[in-house]
Amino acid sequence: MGNYRIAVLPGDGIGKEVTSGAVEVLKAVGIRFGHEFAFEYGLIGGAAIDEAGTPLPEETLRLCQQSDAVLLGAVGGPKWDDNPPHLRPEKGLLAIRKQLDLYANLRPVVCYDSLVSASPLKPDLVQGVDFVIVRELTGGIYFGQPSGRVVENGEERAVDTLLYKKEEIERIVRMAFMLARGRKKKVTSVDKANVLSSSRLWREVAEEVAKEFPDVTLEHMLVDNAAMQLIRAPKQFDVIVTENMFGDILSDEASMLSGSLGMLPSASLSASGPSLYEPVHGSAPDIAGMNKANPIAAILSAAMMLRLSFGLTAEAEAVEHAVWQALDQGLRTADLAPSGGRIVSTNEMVEEIKAAV
Amino acid sequence: MGNYRIAVLPGDGIGKEVTSGAVEVLKAVGIRFGHEFAFEYGLIGGAAIDEAGTPLPEETLRLCQQSDAVLLGAVGGPKWDDNPPHLRPEKGLLAIRKQLDLYANLRPVVCYDSLVSASPLKPDLVQGVDFVIVRELTGGIYFGQPSGRVVENGEERAVDTLLYKKEEIERIVRMAFMLARGRKKKVTSVDKANVLSSSRLWREVAEEVAKEFPDVTLEHMLVDNAAMQLIRAPKQFDVIVTENMFGDILSDEASMLSGSLGMLPSASLSASGPSLYEPVHGSAPDIAGMNKANPIAAILSAAMMLRLSFGLTAEAEAVEHAVWQALDQGLRTADLAPSGGRIVSTNEMVEEIKAAV
Ligand SMILES: CC(C)[C@H](C(=O)O)[C@@H](O)C(=O)O
Ligand SMILES: CC(C)[C@H](C(=O)O)[C@@H](O)C(=O)O
Repeated sequence: MGNYRIAVLPGDGIGKEVTSGAVEVLKAVGIRFGHEFAFEYGLIGGAAIDEAGTPLPEETLRLCQQSDAVLLGAVGGPKWDDNPPHLRPEKGLLAIRKQLDLYANLRPVVCYDSLVSASPLKPDLVQGVDFVIVRELTGGIYFGQPSGRVVENGEERAVDTLLYKKEEIERIVRMAFMLARGRKKKVTSVDKANVLSSSRLWREVAEEVAKEFPDVTLEHMLVDNAAMQLIRAPKQFDVIVTENMFGDILSDEASMLSGSLGMLPSASLSASGPSLYEPVHGSAPDIAGMNKANPIAAILSAAMMLRLSFGLTAEAEAVEHAVWQALDQGLRTADLAPSGGRIVSTNEMVEEIKAAV
Repeated sequence: MGNYRIAVLPGDGIGKEVTSGAVEVLKAVGIRFGHEFAFEYGLIGGAAIDEAGTPLPEETLRLCQQSDAVLLGAVGGPKWDDNPPHLRPEKGLLAIRKQLDLYANLRPVVCYDSLVSASPLKPDLVQGVDFVIVRELTGGIYFGQPSGRVVENGEERAVDTLLYKKEEIERIVRMAFMLARGRKKKVTSVDKANVLSSSRLWREVAEEVAKEFPDVTLEHMLVDNAAMQLIRAPKQFDVIVTENMFGDILSDEASMLSGSLGMLPSASLSASGPSLYEPVHGSAPDIAGMNKANPIAAILSAAMMLRLSFGLTAEAEAVEHAVWQALDQGLRTADLAPSGGRIVSTNEMVEEIKAAV
């Protein structure tokens, strides 16, 4: 019987529809299990630029800091594509990650039996896939300085900086090992140590941290090889840990193992304050407002919130089972069409999952 | 009836076996078409470290500069993994790319009908796949300075620098457009413009260059989305152009569309001097010396050399047809086993292709 304050930041495009679905499901959980969830709404991304002139208003940040957890939709859209860098929706996302110190982005990749045929990969390769990508989220080339444009001897150039401090690597690798301990006890650390200095430091630190976890196996894999292995033999993975940009690329690739990007939830854990939960998919402006988006990634993100921020395991499982049940019954949003079943709208999918909770 | 000087740098691991296979095939081409190919051998990578104390000896570089084209195998292996950065095999590869100004790395990805079932992807997705990845090869985070380790306030950190000059982007994008003109007239420029300054410059320059090619369509795609689209719907691509590191990751991923990394050739074109041809795969130390490696990537690299460096189109086609014929006859090296057929050794595959030439 807990009381929880949840900051909801719908953002742009389908972010609005899918967070609203997740909120519905959380309300159902509150009723069934007798919890009080208070939802307070904040602006972020393009919506915030339009209404408040900045992608992450102070007010939104304060709201998040005073909440127990944050539920985010998605940001971005063509409307703001030509804005100057500091007035782009993505800046809001990057800023909230940095401000709340959301250093550990957990992206579970699971292939549900009923969706095996939605994947572009052969069924026997994806059936039973179950791993987590642990992506470093507040460092690396996303935040390194200098980053910008310079003109030198009349010649235009642009620069970005990939920087990692030892402690930043330590804490994310440790998180991966802790997760692996509760799973299949294998960590795959992905880097490009044959080219990058930062990857060589990464590898060293991973080796050091591994000593604290003698029961867990550590293997290193180069990022180019990892991009290949993810589709060649995805069942070899348990916990993948990697730096920010590699994690961005590999997790979108890996989404195809689960049938659709619309299936993938994520948790961005903070070192100190509230953590943030968001679907891996983007704002999908092409289908925004059409009641077609898959709400499952957002709903499973809410389940991760229940488990990781509130310690409500039974409640998280109730949501996850409700999702499986809807899928087993053959309900499919448009993105899952290749796996057969009955095509339903966002609302219908949400209603079904709510009812099952 | 030409005379051509070819520098052969076998390198390490299976690099030796596959280049020797490609040389055999080139000799057969010489006999059939009446050309004189002179092969001169040089050291690179681990082999060069062992024999000459440096991954790219001066002598090798001079040999290449005096040749009409370079055929390279692969570099690297566990033996040298703990060497300091400047004594690692990969440094030899990076150095030769820089020294010969091999700025344009062309990696064609083709799925042969007879290998459709070797791919981890569903047959209808890969059948007919035919695109080229044009990877920038002498800039970006592979070469940017500073790159190294620093201790600041007792805190260890490592840094790498992603730097692009406008001209570097211009010439590689232009190369992509030129290629597209002879193909399906579509260029997909891959970047991360929502985060990286260098990607925003990349995108601007791509737009500018596009104006010179009104008959070719340009589209932009974020790298995370590209990693997903490559397996979701690979037939949408014609020419993909991207920066060094993204190209490294995406081309290894894309190799799975053709059934095996053992199928992918590449050409690294120089702005001025001789160009270099090498299989995309690495040195595969686990199967080195076992007569098991797939020589086709190296042989198709030799075909690219015939076409692009020597302008010998009929000769290149003869090699390509010989490869198809061997595959159609059901010959498979171990890496291609999932597609059925008869498993043969490296030598047997080479003999068959030679005979067909
Ligand atoms: C929108 C963008 C800045 C973001 C990222 O690159 O991190 C997104 O792709 C993600 O993966 O959350
Ligand atoms: C060996 C390594 C340095 C190289 C690269 O990263 O460029 C390789 O992966 C390649 O793709 O040619």
